[in-house]
Amino acid sequence: MNTVANEVINPTQMESYIQTLGSKAFEAKAVLASASTTQKNEALLKIAEAIASHQKEILAANQKDLLEAESSGLESSLKDRLTLSEKSVALMVESLMQIRALPDPIGSISDLRYQPSGIQVGKMRVPLGVIGMIYESRPNVTQEAAGLCIKSGNVVILKGGKEALHSNQAILAAIHQGLAAANLPLAAVQLINTTRREAVTHLIRMNQYVDLIIPRGGKGLIETIAKESRIPVIKHLDGVCHVYVDIAADIEKALKIVINAKTQRYGTCNTMETLLVHEEIAPLFLPSIIEKLLEKGVELRGCEETRVFSKQVITATEADWSCEYLAPILSIKMVSDLNQAIAHISTYGSHHTDAIVTENWNNAQRFLKEVDSSSVMVNASTRFADGFEYGLGAEVGISTDKFHARGPVGLEGLTSEKFIVLGDGHIRS
Amino acid sequence: MNTVANEVINPTQMESYIQTLGSKAFEAKAVLASASTTQKNEALLKIAEAIASHQKEILAANQKDLLEAESSGLESSLKDRLTLSEKSVALMVESLMQIRALPDPIGSISDLRYQPSGIQVGKMRVPLGVIGMIYESRPNVTQEAAGLCIKSGNVVILKGGKEALHSNQAILAAIHQGLAAANLPLAAVQLINTTRREAVTHLIRMNQYVDLIIPRGGKGLIETIAKESRIPVIKHLDGVCHVYVDIAADIEKALKIVINAKTQRYGTCNTMETLLVHEEIAPLFLPSIIEKLLEKGVELRGCEETRVFSKQVITATEADWSCEYLAPILSIKMVSDLNQAIAHISTYGSHHTDAIVTENWNNAQRFLKEVDSSSVMVNASTRFADGFEYGLGAEVGISTDKFHARGPVGLEGLTSEKFIVLGDGHIRS
Repeated sequence: MNTVANEVINPTQMESYIQTLGSKAFEAKAVLASASTTQKNEALLKIAEAIASHQKEILAANQKDLLEAESSGLESSLKDRLTLSEKSVALMVESLMQIRALPDPIGSISDLRYQPSGIQVGKMRVPLGVIGMIYESRPNVTQEAAGLCIKSGNVVILKGGKEALHSNQAILAAIHQGLAAANLPLAAVQLINTTRREAVTHLIRMNQYVDLIIPRGGKGLIETIAKESRIPVIKHLDGVCHVYVDIAADIEKALKIVINAKTQRYGTCNTMETLLVHEEIAPLFLPSIIEKLLEKGVELRGCEETRVFSKQVITATEADWSCEYLAPILSIKMVSDLNQAIAHISTYGSHHTDAIVTENWNNAQRFLKEVDSSSVMVNASTRFADGFEYGLGAEVGISTDKFHARGPVGLEGLTSEKFIVLGDGHIRS
Repeated sequence: MNTVANEVINPTQMESYIQTLGSKAFEAKAVLASASTTQKNEALLKIAEAIASHQKEILAANQKDLLEAESSGLESSLKDRLTLSEKSVALMVESLMQIRALPDPIGSISDLRYQPSGIQVGKMRVPLGVIGMIYESRPNVTQEAAGLCIKSGNVVILKGGKEALHSNQAILAAIHQGLAAANLPLAAVQLINTTRREAVTHLIRMNQYVDLIIPRGGKGLIETIAKESRIPVIKHLDGVCHVYVDIAADIEKALKIVINAKTQRYGTCNTMETLLVHEEIAPLFLPSIIEKLLEKGVELRGCEETRVFSKQVITATEADWSCEYLAPILSIKMVSDLNQAIAHISTYGSHHTDAIVTENWNNAQRFLKEVDSSSVMVNASTRFADGFEYGLGAEVGISTDKFHARGPVGLEGLTSEKFIVLGDGHIRS
């Protein structure tokens, strides 16, 4: 299993290599689907223990990746994400124990009701089957994805970043040790053991074996995968998030929320990128928020009406309204009412996360209903859009699609519901 | 609206015609999404009334279609489906009133819970947006699809069978009269006013405007659409349904269920196509079921072990096990245990509907858990797999996929859930 060394896989062998992983995953599917909660939790515990006891090997493998990254001139932000430490290994162990503590979604039955014919009809939650997880340099996605898939009774094929191959192989060895200790098939978690990109192309076309593709990484990667995949994809593209400060906003709450939504972290998808301000509250709110944001070193780009309040706000261009800065930059637009705010979000937003700050019941209700985003908030910071904050446990990703899973995707996003029908010799008349 | 006559649409105009329908649908989306339950129910009532009062026009248009079908030599089964009568118009009215009586799924909030940070997080059910519905000759799909979409706050673009164009136009006129009376935009329901097939190609690629494609019709149509669509598709391919008569089956129940599952209707997707029988119960069960099925005129194709019981059972070939006969033909296979039954269903089934007949608790539980089909049944006829029988109200289709919607798809399948977050100035720390 997974012993194919990178160098022996040439392009012509690649497709059959990926097919082999696929068919092994497919075979393991029924075992994982019917594994008991106890057995799955035992596997998670044993994997956590194996990762803890193999800390040395994992860090050594990571060192090897870092040395190669050094010589190939990898940019420093990628190197940051690649780097593991004793602390990150401890966090990997901790994350597995948290997944272990989550309730098992599989087998739960809901809405079981008698129908007029006398049959009982309900829904049973079941695994999706085989998940293909494609991610970039962070090696700690490896054990997290494995943990979430095991807990939800799914089999997973992992394709990590090429820079992280040695780290991922070392983590996989610990995962396999844990699976073996819990008497689960090693094929439950497989790693595509190559740095070659064609591997992804074959994986996302293998719809006879794989039920779902989850890409985690840059927009380019996700767009390409979504376009070429023959398998459903849970995708998350931009996070162009808005905070709208309504005419009826509480100024103190608005200041707190806007500062938090923009400056708590700049590089995350749930960070606010555009601030919308009702024109009647602007004179009370804009001068102080502008001052506070400038103090924090945030560059401000505003519409002409906003610029009246400060010369330090530069002119926003049309492109600013749909830009995900992921940086200390904020665009600000004044709007004449709630309708205009909702229309702006609908035109320029990315259906990720948008918030209103208001004390007005009706405006809050309208915003909740009419804004078509995966998370819609009232009087809270957009930074809350996160699986842990939502009580889902670990997060597989954030879906900005409407289909199947929307918003932060936890264990449930890796499952579906089938109908069950219970009778006692019932026939249809 | 929809006044473009078929003959003026030449191939080069087709794409822009479909784009125009798409952009009108897109514009109507927000109005439908925020329409109140009262307003949507009013529209359904007014449409029902308009269909009833336009019965004469609808039947005259249908007569025109039937005359054209006659002269073009349409096959009789298609002509049957195309034909409307006073009774079918009454049923159309009745189906709209039933949809009106269903609870409105939109805006319902579930799982609203406080999180440790103090925010409340829950899920709100919302429409998908714009649905593209592609169907074949039955004109009564027109008002049913329109009704389901209106009730669920969605906009719909309809592409009916080319044989039914006049009927569909007449039904659409009544739908528009009802929408106008309820003050909803006519673009909520549009009909692609052409018999040309390229219209479908443009529709399923228009992912900037359309959120979901639902094809209803033959396997060929659905396969082509699923392959070429750039939009998610709710698809239903084969229904190769099984009944497994377990060693612990009650013979009387087994006889009743098998006869019903096979012979109540032959042409439906939830009809049993393969009967699996445990070898130890076979001597008690097979002789009488074979006799009863032959009496009903069902052709039987069995494995060698089955044929021991009757010379009138002909030899089944490998192809029989995965064949959806949709006809008075049944394949029969003897199995040595539950494992073999489940393995057979997994290999040859279509993940549609499969049933076990047993009095054994453990076997029933294992079958429910391990059979990976959209409906799994115990001691009930596969013929129950149907939106009405499941209490979903009308049915949009039956999905054999695992994603988003599985099994009979009712109103909920036309919706998704977004997260809502309620705070009081909460920020993330």
